[in-house]
Amino acid sequence: MAVSKAKSAAFNAALEAGKYIKERRGNIKHIDYKGAFNIVTDVDKASEKMILEILKSDFPDDSYVAEEGGGHEASKTERRWYVDPLDGTTNFTHSYPFFCVSIGMEEAGQMMLGVVYNPIADELFYAERGKGAFLNDEPITVSAIGELRHSLLATGFPPDTGIIQPHNNMVPFTTLTNLSHGVRRDGSAALDLCFVACGRLEGFWELKLAPWDIAAGSLIVEEAGGRVSDLADGPMDISTGHILATNKLIHDEVVAEMKKLDLK
Amino acid sequence: MAVSKAKSAAFNAALEAGKYIKERRGNIKHIDYKGAFNIVTDVDKASEKMILEILKSDFPDDSYVAEEGGGHEASKTERRWYVDPLDGTTNFTHSYPFFCVSIGMEEAGQMMLGVVYNPIADELFYAERGKGAFLNDEPITVSAIGELRHSLLATGFPPDTGIIQPHNNMVPFTTLTNLSHGVRRDGSAALDLCFVACGRLEGFWELKLAPWDIAAGSLIVEEAGGRVSDLADGPMDISTGHILATNKLIHDEVVAEMKKLDLK
Repeated sequence: MAVSKAKSAAFNAALEAGKYIKERRGNIKHIDYKGAFNIVTDVDKASEKMILEILKSDFPDDSYVAEEGGGHEASKTERRWYVDPLDGTTNFTHSYPFFCVSIGMEEAGQMMLGVVYNPIADELFYAERGKGAFLNDEPITVSAIGELRHSLLATGFPPDTGIIQPHNNMVPFTTLTNLSHGVRRDGSAALDLCFVACGRLEGFWELKLAPWDIAAGSLIVEEAGGRVSDLADGPMDISTGHILATNKLIHDEVVAEMKKLDLK
Repeated sequence: MAVSKAKSAAFNAALEAGKYIKERRGNIKHIDYKGAFNIVTDVDKASEKMILEILKSDFPDDSYVAEEGGGHEASKTERRWYVDPLDGTTNFTHSYPFFCVSIGMEEAGQMMLGVVYNPIADELFYAERGKGAFLNDEPITVSAIGELRHSLLATGFPPDTGIIQPHNNMVPFTTLTNLSHGVRRDGSAALDLCFVACGRLEGFWELKLAPWDIAAGSLIVEEAGGRVSDLADGPMDISTGHILATNKLIHDEVVAEMKKLDLK
């Protein structure tokens, strides 16, 4: 069965790349700015190379979508990998200890496998479609909190907030801060999704994320018993990257608040 | 010399209470709401009792200011302890892994000693006036980043944001998100101050904090080479709790932005 071989390759790639990233923390040779706002380092690029080499040695004919451009589309496969070699690059460059490697695999348009590894906390989140979600081999589930007012949430803002999108997500942030225990803003969408999956957060939303940010984490949330949609409760579309992920119990309440805001 | 005895007592209290808090994570018997908004658990109370017993056994005649009300003012001493038995209680109740114990000691109105312990990361931050700042016994210094636009910041919002103070701090949050690499909002002021001290953040600000939130952390920032003031660059007053702490290099630039906002 392809999934168990894929699982083994994804674990191996995430752990190897995570170890490398952890060693390089606080020792960055070069910072570039993608499109003037988005930080990328030599560590992002080296981590991606490492991951793609491991995955491609087992799955040379698959398609790969990777943040630093090392992917390619294959014509003869229905299997596609989404690779974020370092989610939370801004945190990483500042040594703020919240970043991860994220690897997702889809077959025939459906996410089948998600692996997210935080090398600082040594936490490996994993899910396989239909088989549940795990943190370091222990099963995880979303939280049982049923009301928004008792919930802890998280969100993020895109790198070009301030120049191109000055008001991006500030209205939802203010609104949901006022209605909940608070909104964390910790700088890694993939880890925020895993925190929803293991019950540390009741919900997470963000706008305009990239496919590699959410491919693995969205499956991990669903397999932990949570719900993933766009902000209006339609199907989450990995190409637009608008996402709301919750413990399912508060989903309708958050969607109702989002609908009041008339978001663009 | 009193400081070395005080240091030993504060280390002992922070490590003991931190160990207890870590064990109780995810296993809370009772949540109260102080003043309808501020969460307090049986763990906050037990941690405070543990810390005060340790400190008072060595310093029975000192004054104590503690978050859960276990303190008392002594008339014959110029020495006062500030104890936050669990900074980041909201995070703790959700098992979001970012909370700490904070213990500060002042003599004759001047902070002399600060100890902050994060039991999940096992990070003990420490400073003694005139002797530098340390993380797990290694000296720490603030970051060398000199421009706001290349800085990572953090802030917080009070528990009653939404009802009593609906717009609290949202304008500074939006403004500084737009001018920097981003503003983290992770739910523990004491840890945010320590992150400024060790260079993981260039700056932190918040309004209306309590003395026990900032007593230890503000000394740790100063001893690591940073600068602490109120938001208008006047002296930080522990009784009003408006604080701006930076790596010193970006301080004037942040103060200039705050002055434009005409904060109440």
